[in-house]
Amino acid sequence: MNFPSRLIEEAVMAFSRFPGIGKKTALRLTLHVLRQDPAEALQLSEALRKLASDIRYCQQCHNISDADLCQICANKQRDAGLVCVVADMRDVIAIENTGQFHGVYHVLGGLIMPMDGIGPDQLKMASLEERVQSGAIREMVLAFSATQEGDTTAFYIARKLKDSGIKMSTIARGIAIGGELEYADEITLGRSIQQRIPFGY
Amino acid sequence: MNFPSRLIEEAVMAFSRFPGIGKKTALRLTLHVLRQDPAEALQLSEALRKLASDIRYCQQCHNISDADLCQICANKQRDAGLVCVVADMRDVIAIENTGQFHGVYHVLGGLIMPMDGIGPDQLKMASLEERVQSGAIREMVLAFSATQEGDTTAFYIARKLKDSGIKMSTIARGIAIGGELEYADEITLGRSIQQRIPFGY
Repeated sequence: MNFPSRLIEEAVMAFSRFPGIGKKTALRLTLHVLRQDPAEALQLSEALRKLASDIRYCQQCHNISDADLCQICANKQRDAGLVCVVADMRDVIAIENTGQFHGVYHVLGGLIMPMDGIGPDQLKMASLEERVQSGAIREMVLAFSATQEGDTTAFYIARKLKDSGIKMSTIARGIAIGGELEYADEITLGRSIQQRIPFGY
Repeated sequence: MNFPSRLIEEAVMAFSRFPGIGKKTALRLTLHVLRQDPAEALQLSEALRKLASDIRYCQQCHNISDADLCQICANKQRDAGLVCVVADMRDVIAIENTGQFHGVYHVLGGLIMPMDGIGPDQLKMASLEERVQSGAIREMVLAFSATQEGDTTAFYIARKLKDSGIKMSTIARGIAIGGELEYADEITLGRSIQQRIPFGY
């Protein structure tokens, strides 16, 4: 593609480095920036600059935070003894949106992926063990995606902490609410039968 | 959605103002910015800042340009008497990529859309007439999308300049190269029959 201006080219190149954004979409985004109020473009520019330079992480749970301790860890209403271990910030947002969890989190910063060179040392695993050793954790919920990596990470943590005496659980796998049986894959359906839960009056 | 940090929230809000980008995609882009090298985020930040403040337009064709005259208008190799009139910069890029046009452009900055309050006065129409009156234009190609708005704009220009003596044409409509007849819509197929071109030895 030939661009009429170096400024356009720079913006298109920068946008097209995002996952899932090709040259055409990048150009569409760039043209949108040109058409909109310059103040809005400056706002995004400023937000990105701050993301690159000012972002901080909670010293306890490693979630992104504006202070040394994130809003959740700092909240006295939350059950500090109940810790939900997740891969990244998106999972925290997803679980918070359910309104069903009243404990605190531990953000690992990823899942164990040996093929990509990501082992326990690349994740916030040592810091999780420290929290366990400090005696602050009573119960732990492992909330990982139902993938190979999620299972590997869960098994690693369960084995590592098996002598800690902490009550440990993992989020339930099964048929999604509203999901139809006939369209469920065999593995999910199989697991939801194995892990059937008591029901009835 | 509840965000763990104001910085994240600002970035997500800024991204989600783009067309076709919702909150989830905006969050995905924001997290990508966090994961990548801060230098790349700063590059995009800087590119956006420049787009908002430093962008300039060619004084002759109104295409985006780094100088008073764009690379195309300034190029002595191009046929300055042959002008292709287009709606916006994307069309210039698309036509340039074909390598089939050796004239110069006139970028209207949109199409006539009375329902959206966009009339000839909101477009670079007066400037096109000036270029015509200066006698610099010998032939004009109207290259608009095959939509109601494109047709309206083409008819407006054709009527406005009918006494100018300029040779005027519009790009051909028809079956796309590689397109199958049976899947072509009736209007396109109908037009391609009406406007059939001589063929044979």
